Amino acid sequence: MGLFSKDIKTMNDLFVHTLRDIYYAENQILKALPEMIEKATDAQLKQAFQSHLAETKNQVKRVEQVFQMHGVEAKGIDCPAIDGIIEEADDVAGEIADKEVLNAALAGAAQAVEHYEIARYGTLIAWAKQLGRNDCASVLQKNLDEEKAADKKLTEIAEARLNFRAAELIAGLLAKTAHADTLARLRSGVPASGGDPSRVPFRLIRTWLITDQPDRAVRAGVHPRSRDVFSARRRASTPGRCDITSAPCGRDGSSRTG
Amino acid sequence: MGLFSKDIKTMNDLFVHTLRDIYYAENQILKALPEMIEKATDAQLKQAFQSHLAETKNQVKRVEQVFQMHGVEAKGIDCPAIDGIIEEADDVAGEIADKEVLNAALAGAAQAVEHYEIARYGTLIAWAKQLGRNDCASVLQKNLDEEKAADKKLTEIAEARLNFRAAELIAGLLAKTAHADTLARLRSGVPASGGDPSRVPFRLIRTWLITDQPDRAVRAGVHPRSRDVFSARRRASTPGRCDITSAPCGRDGSSRTG
Repeated sequence: MGLFSKDIKTMNDLFVHTLRDIYYAENQILKALPEMIEKATDAQLKQAFQSHLAETKNQVKRVEQVFQMHGVEAKGIDCPAIDGIIEEADDVAGEIADKEVLNAALAGAAQAVEHYEIARYGTLIAWAKQLGRNDCASVLQKNLDEEKAADKKLTEIAEARLNFRAAELIAGLLAKTAHADTLARLRSGVPASGGDPSRVPFRLIRTWLITDQPDRAVRAGVHPRSRDVFSARRRASTPGRCDITSAPCGRDGSSRTG
Repeated sequence: MGLFSKDIKTMNDLFVHTLRDIYYAENQILKALPEMIEKATDAQLKQAFQSHLAETKNQVKRVEQVFQMHGVEAKGIDCPAIDGIIEEADDVAGEIADKEVLNAALAGAAQAVEHYEIARYGTLIAWAKQLGRNDCASVLQKNLDEEKAADKKLTEIAEARLNFRAAELIAGLLAKTAHADTLARLRSGVPASGGDPSRVPFRLIRTWLITDQPDRAVRAGVHPRSRDVFSARRRASTPGRCDITSAPCGRDGSSRTG
C-alpha cells in the first residue's frame, strides 16, 4: 500500500484490505503451527494444535471463498501484527528448556494468535453486514466460531493443568501431614461421612489416588472448578482443617470419624 | 533477553516475562491512544477512547502493583506483538481520508489491541493461580474485566452505526416507494394497528423520523438487534411487503389499513 496516497477510500476498500490482512495472517499461522506441534510435549496441547492446523487449512479456503464471492483477487498483504505475535512466540519459546514451562508458553502464544483472529473476524463480519453482504458475513462467522472454540479449548487445557497441579499438591500435603489417614481412606475408596463434598475436588483427587494415573483422570473430564481446588488447598494447608474428605475434624487436625 | 541462553527456566520466570510484556504493551497503548482520540470524529468512539485512556493509566498502576506484590522490579521488555498491532493501525489510518471509514478502521484497530490484552491477561491470571498467587491474579482480573468491557463497548458502537445505516436505508426506501403513507404515519406518530412491532426496529426508525436527530436516538440507547434491522430491510426492499409499520399489506404493497 502506498504511504503517500490515500488508498482506502470506502468501507468496501477497508473490508477488502482487512480480508487480505487476515488471509496473510492465516497463511503465516499455517507455517508456524507445525513447529508448535513439534515443540509441544503435553499430549492434549499437541492434539489441540493438530486439530487447529486442520481447521486453519479450511479457514484459508473459506477466506478464499469470500474473496471470490466479493469478486476480488485472493491475495495477502503484510500484517505486522501477526508477524509480531509469531516473532514474540518464537523468541520466548527459544529461551525455555523446561517442558512444562514451554508447554505453558506455547499455549499462551497460541491464545494471543486466536485473539488476534477473533478481533479481525469480528470486525470483518460487522463490516460485511454494513456492506449488505450477509452472505460473506456468514462464511466468516464459521471461522470466528472455530477461533473462539480453539481459544476456549486452550483455556480448558490450562485449567486442567492447574487442577492437576493442585490435586498433586493436596495429595502431597496429605501424605506428609497428620492427614495421612485421610489419604489412606481415599485410596481404599471408603466413602467419607458427613460434610459437603462439593467444597473440594473430591472426585479428582480420589481418582488420582486410586488409579495413580492422573493424566487419565484429567482427560476423563474430572475438572472441578479451580476456585474449589484452591479453597481446598488453602484448607488442606491450614493446620486443624481437613475438609478434604468432607469428614469433620478437631482443631488439632485429628479426624473425629477416623 | 539473551538469544543464546535459556533465560526462562521456571513458570515464575515465564510469569514475570509476560508481566513485563504487558507492562510494555500498556505503556505503548498509553502513547498511541491520544492520536486515536484526535483522529476519531464519531462522538461515541472518541468518548470510548477517552474513557479507555483513563482506564489504561489505572491498568499500568495495577501491573506495577503486581510487580511489587511479586517482589520484582517493574520494567518492560520489547513486545513485537503490540508494536506490530500499533504499526498496522498507523499504516491503515494513514491511508484513509473518509471520516466514516477512518472511524471504522480506528475501532477495528482498538479491538485488535483489546484482544491482545485479553489474551495476555487471561494467560497471566492462569499462571498466577498456578504459582499460588491468587492475590496477583485478582488484581490482574480487574484489568481483564476492563479490557473485555472496552471491547464490548466498541462492538456496541459498531452495531449502533450498523443499525443507524440500516434505519437510514429503510427510511429512504419508504420515502421513495409506494410506502410513503407509512412514512407519513410514522412521522405523525399515529400508532400502527395489529402485527408484531418487535419484528422491526420500529422505535429506532420512528424516533429517527420524528426527531430528525438520529444520533440522539442512537445515543438514547434505542439499539434493536441488528438481525431484526436486516430482516426488516429485506422485507422493506421486497415489493409487496411492508411489515415496517406492522400493518398488514396487500401483495401490491398498498396498505389495507391506510
